[in-house]
Amino acid sequence: MSKINMGNFFEDFHMGQKIIHPLPRTISEGDVSLYIAFTGSRFALHSSDVVAKQMGYDKRPIDDILMFHLTFGKSVQDISLNAIANLGYAEISFPNPVYIGDTVSMTSTVIGLKENSNGKSGVVYVHSIGINQDGAEVLNFKRWVMVHKKDKTTNSGIKKIPEFKESTPICEEINIPTIKAVDTDASGGKFFFEDYEKGERLNHPEGITIDNSDHTLATKLYQNNAKVHFNDHMMKSTPMGQRLMYGGIIISMARTISFNGLQNAQWVYAINSGAHANPTYAGDTIYAYTEVLDVIDHQREDIGLLRLRTIAVKNQKSSEITSPKDEDGKYLKNIVLDLDYTVVIPKKKTEK
Amino acid sequence: MSKINMGNFFEDFHMGQKIIHPLPRTISEGDVSLYIAFTGSRFALHSSDVVAKQMGYDKRPIDDILMFHLTFGKSVQDISLNAIANLGYAEISFPNPVYIGDTVSMTSTVIGLKENSNGKSGVVYVHSIGINQDGAEVLNFKRWVMVHKKDKTTNSGIKKIPEFKESTPICEEINIPTIKAVDTDASGGKFFFEDYEKGERLNHPEGITIDNSDHTLATKLYQNNAKVHFNDHMMKSTPMGQRLMYGGIIISMARTISFNGLQNAQWVYAINSGAHANPTYAGDTIYAYTEVLDVIDHQREDIGLLRLRTIAVKNQKSSEITSPKDEDGKYLKNIVLDLDYTVVIPKKKTEK
Amino acid sequence: MSKINMGNFFEDFHMGQKIIHPLPRTISEGDVSLYIAFTGSRFALHSSDVVAKQMGYDKRPIDDILMFHLTFGKSVQDISLNAIANLGYAEISFPNPVYIGDTVSMTSTVIGLKENSNGKSGVVYVHSIGINQDGAEVLNFKRWVMVHKKDKTTNSGIKKIPEFKESTPICEEINIPTIKAVDTDASGGKFFFEDYEKGERLNHPEGITIDNSDHTLATKLYQNNAKVHFNDHMMKSTPMGQRLMYGGIIISMARTISFNGLQNAQWVYAINSGAHANPTYAGDTIYAYTEVLDVIDHQREDIGLLRLRTIAVKNQKSSEITSPKDEDGKYLKNIVLDLDYTVVIPKKKTEK
Repeated sequence: MSKINMGNFFEDFHMGQKIIHPLPRTISEGDVSLYIAFTGSRFALHSSDVVAKQMGYDKRPIDDILMFHLTFGKSVQDISLNAIANLGYAEISFPNPVYIGDTVSMTSTVIGLKENSNGKSGVVYVHSIGINQDGAEVLNFKRWVMVHKKDKTTNSGIKKIPEFKESTPICEEINIPTIKAVDTDASGGKFFFEDYEKGERLNHPEGITIDNSDHTLATKLYQNNAKVHFNDHMMKSTPMGQRLMYGGIIISMARTISFNGLQNAQWVYAINSGAHANPTYAGDTIYAYTEVLDVIDHQREDIGLLRLRTIAVKNQKSSEITSPKDEDGKYLKNIVLDLDYTVVIPKKKTEK
Repeated sequence: MSKINMGNFFEDFHMGQKIIHPLPRTISEGDVSLYIAFTGSRFALHSSDVVAKQMGYDKRPIDDILMFHLTFGKSVQDISLNAIANLGYAEISFPNPVYIGDTVSMTSTVIGLKENSNGKSGVVYVHSIGINQDGAEVLNFKRWVMVHKKDKTTNSGIKKIPEFKESTPICEEINIPTIKAVDTDASGGKFFFEDYEKGERLNHPEGITIDNSDHTLATKLYQNNAKVHFNDHMMKSTPMGQRLMYGGIIISMARTISFNGLQNAQWVYAINSGAHANPTYAGDTIYAYTEVLDVIDHQREDIGLLRLRTIAVKNQKSSEITSPKDEDGKYLKNIVLDLDYTVVIPKKKTEK
Repeated sequence: MSKINMGNFFEDFHMGQKIIHPLPRTISEGDVSLYIAFTGSRFALHSSDVVAKQMGYDKRPIDDILMFHLTFGKSVQDISLNAIANLGYAEISFPNPVYIGDTVSMTSTVIGLKENSNGKSGVVYVHSIGINQDGAEVLNFKRWVMVHKKDKTTNSGIKKIPEFKESTPICEEINIPTIKAVDTDASGGKFFFEDYEKGERLNHPEGITIDNSDHTLATKLYQNNAKVHFNDHMMKSTPMGQRLMYGGIIISMARTISFNGLQNAQWVYAINSGAHANPTYAGDTIYAYTEVLDVIDHQREDIGLLRLRTIAVKNQKSSEITSPKDEDGKYLKNIVLDLDYTVVIPKKKTEK
């Protein structure tokens, strides 16, 4: 038996299978600093213990998207190392905060399998749960990937496709401390829950260029070992001709760029769906704009939610994009992310 | 009212205006490690708790220039986002040490305004003060920037220019612990206050090349969001044709390279003035030499000060430069920094 | 007397000379995160406090190779700044674990000197010992470098060549806590000491491309100031034409890539010898394969050792390499590292 782990192929998965992903990760101050260096993120809650305490925390929590990358990265070896394509994800939620010193780990359950009619590949659907060292859930999501088959001459015909909710449900309890005060001098933004309207559009002015070291250092930090991101020698013989950027890099950049206009929306509550419409490579400059899809009140007096759609664009100002899709419903070639997600934002009464 | 913050234009400033810059920042071990990775800095006091304790500290303090970048970066959004040019700074001082875990923040006061006669822009003079979580001053400086006007058809004719001291004053009290002992085996340098002479020149032999990821990761870490440093897509349509390096990167490199010959001068007491004589871009190799402008004794028995002028040069050995300026008083095209600053250096009696 | 330290030349060394290398270094969480970002290393013991505790540690220890770089880097200024070539090293051992917060420093003793017959250079042999803040040995090795002479007209004829052991001796006591349990779900590998056979070969599938920022940021983090790694301006006028990568970068990449197949071999016990067969530059993609040279039982019931030879290859899959040398015993031009080292791996009884 070979000691080399070549990842799983379509035949290696079965319905209900539980996969414990290796490599629990202790999140450190170094990870937090590196995330700021990679993105330039300016959300005050994640940069400052003083701000976090003023708001009602004991100390600054980890940025949700950083935690996502560090936890998600563990599943690549088992789920998507042999992926032809990451097809989608759904119902991503962030049930509990994570702090410096916490150790996150992840398990997945196979919830769907569909063999493609050509017999060469199939789609695997998994439900993945990340927990901290005390067993509390910190990440919960479903995703589906198309993976190669080992034996391309047979076809099981399996077709078990799970149903997904159109958006991540919003719970009555939200595990965020009661927000005592939001100092707008510290957060850099004067707008609260009540200030946003459904249909509103925010053209974030910043554009940030990503280089090869930026995205490969980040993806290595996340211990995401998908070859397409690191191996230029291999990629040179593919149609892409170079290393492909990890899609999560673009999610991080879009979120970072969205700061200007959403400074007080410092928590990602859920990601409802996302499409990496086109690939990104070193040298691309990322811009973004955000549409407010919905304004969602909550029983809590201190916070509400905004359902947002952030569109990331490469090498073109976001203000120049009217719609990310053309008349035939196809993404324009410069669109690199279409992210539907929900953030928490304090209400005006918390303003200080 | 737009939720997008486009930064301030000349008309947005008025005399005496107080600006609280957002985003207090907790400085972490990660920031310190990244700074060493960016610069290769070898000053022992900032690298080693053992050395710091031996000298009289409880633990290693943050490198003054790193603290400067992390604090200064906060002011870019409000002061210099729409800057045409960073014209100068004066009277920079570092009144108190900063440690890992401290949270720094900054406020500025407008102390001068001068509208340019063409009506298109004006110069804004600010006095900025950085404090830690206890309110102690950790950074104090004045700077002036030329910023665009919104309305280019009017001209207020305002002309209030503050006066600056030729150098940062030296206080009777210096907030550095009494230096108990300097172990030259640990610091790597055998020279103390008494060993330096006015007029002496040190040709530091090292040259360090900076790439795009190096300088953009650093500038993002400092949460300095000036577009010229990050947005290659935008810069391609400017005469520069590429991303401009943040001037602070060169200050850091010059200081790092000056280690060889100034190993025991581990504190920056003040920056008297500085000129970024020419721009720097990815791929440039930075060299530096230092002239001792003055040797300044202090009433303290353990320390004295050196006023230094460090000249940073790109793509040419510093030993080949006789003077940074030509016969007409213009900087040579390879000179990238002319920094006049004051450092603290222990006296011989502290040698161990 | 010049204050500039130009490093030592052959004439500056004498037999028995003790050199205390400056700059004790406190190892931080930031260093650990950066090492993961540079390499993508996935050894669970170094990534997770939870895993470390389960195995019998109080907290996660520092990766041995990271500690090596941070300690070794201190010796460059004194030993190899004027090196023409790093000729070899021997008997490298890692006597005690190092943790976040520990401060490492290093001293060297000259144990051999051989002047070359051309009078232009000589070989210096040193025995270097790294210790932590309590004086416990954490690194012990011998190396020899060829350095320039200052005066090329004389020749002392000195020829004192020390003898080296063929491999680092294995002690009866190994300073690793008794391994309580190895959770293979966490470590990602199912193979233990008893599973490996002498002569076995592991073709690690991953390839990782290294860019200029990657290797220069790492080498600066290690405060290794050898000019050839940083100064592109200087290197452009050499036959290499560009910055040369620090050989330690390749050791780190080889070790990281060897994870797939050696997941439970989480400790480097010794490095017996190593050859940097060919130089590496930015843009090279590193692959590796490992041969099991020997399986070495130990009196301890929980652990054994494997003597390994990991061959790193650039820009070619490691599985395509039959032997790293051609018929004449010369390294193939794509071979960049031939590393003979010994790792500790738990026995089956620790499996959980």
